[in-house]
Amino acid sequence: MPRLRKRPEHTETAARILRAAEQLFAERGLAGASTQQIATLARANKAMLYYYFGSKERLLRAVLENLLGELHASYQAASRAPGGPAARLLLFLSSYFDFLVGHPNYPRLMQRQVMHAEFDWIARKYFVPFHRAISLTIRQGIRAREFRPVDPDHAVFTILGMTIFYFAAATKLGPALGRNLLAPRALEQRRRALLDFLVHGLFLPKVTRP
Amino acid sequence: MPRLRKRPEHTETAARILRAAEQLFAERGLAGASTQQIATLARANKAMLYYYFGSKERLLRAVLENLLGELHASYQAASRAPGGPAARLLLFLSSYFDFLVGHPNYPRLMQRQVMHAEFDWIARKYFVPFHRAISLTIRQGIRAREFRPVDPDHAVFTILGMTIFYFAAATKLGPALGRNLLAPRALEQRRRALLDFLVHGLFLPKVTRP
Repeated sequence: MPRLRKRPEHTETAARILRAAEQLFAERGLAGASTQQIATLARANKAMLYYYFGSKERLLRAVLENLLGELHASYQAASRAPGGPAARLLLFLSSYFDFLVGHPNYPRLMQRQVMHAEFDWIARKYFVPFHRAISLTIRQGIRAREFRPVDPDHAVFTILGMTIFYFAAATKLGPALGRNLLAPRALEQRRRALLDFLVHGLFLPKVTRP
Repeated sequence: MPRLRKRPEHTETAARILRAAEQLFAERGLAGASTQQIATLARANKAMLYYYFGSKERLLRAVLENLLGELHASYQAASRAPGGPAARLLLFLSSYFDFLVGHPNYPRLMQRQVMHAEFDWIARKYFVPFHRAISLTIRQGIRAREFRPVDPDHAVFTILGMTIFYFAAATKLGPALGRNLLAPRALEQRRRALLDFLVHGLFLPKVTRP
């Protein structure tokens, strides 16, 4: 059986199930999305879903690990980038922004998850290291006199909040405001507005402002 | 029957039901909280709950209108305060912050609500006017040369996001980080960090920084 997993057509089936599950869990939640609906959307059968993922709960876990693993990889790459803390922080924020643009289901999945006890493993395994990596960069930037002497932990909450909120609010608040907040032009404006606010809010004036 | 509503002991019962419902809807959602549980927590009986509110759905609506009405009143008061746009914006943010400190159930209720189609009336009736009031203040501040020439709508998303996220994350992320983010001292640090970031991110340097 393990050999089966490695055949390309099967890996593709697993990937399609994962994508379908991501979308339906975001839209309807764990209780609201059935394995039959997920299998149908993935053009797979339920047996394959259970073969690859074991249960609906483990499928949700796989969806979350898949997304969070990608976010993790992107900020690990930013951590290793050359340049000082200011350049690194801008790269962190840009990578996070790109991740949110590329994964429109992510904010809704997290909003659903934060309501459950099963959020704790996510907090410990992903969010705490993410928070600490950004907090460390801010601390280094203060020491290097690139950033104002702010409270680093609070700056992390500020930066993450001003980034995620737009995406969490976009699908519901955009139509009410009569704007498509996820259109390419709107996203480009958003990215500029975010980086501009971060630079003015945190950076010392002498640091080159991109 | 209408006369009954005005007796003080009945108004108190309705207020107790509203408070109990706010707490249980935040913790368990509309489907997860039963009218019996709400009545028990409110030290009332289910008949009174139905007499005052008609149904569980209408009780949730009353809970939300009650909270959002208070938020509305607080920013209306800030809109009428004397002083220029800079002072008014700081007052907006302070009032919103105080509201969030005083209503710990609010972020969870909104996170649950944003998943449902029933969020649209909230967006139209409350969030759009709230957004427009802050956006107008920012526009006025740019004209008065108190603020940098930013995109006013994006600045609203930035400001609201950096404020609400901390409260939405506090109960889950605080324990994982080993900090009580809602302790009085943490909240005072948070308020200072927020206003400081806003002032540096948006205000022109010449404007007096409190």
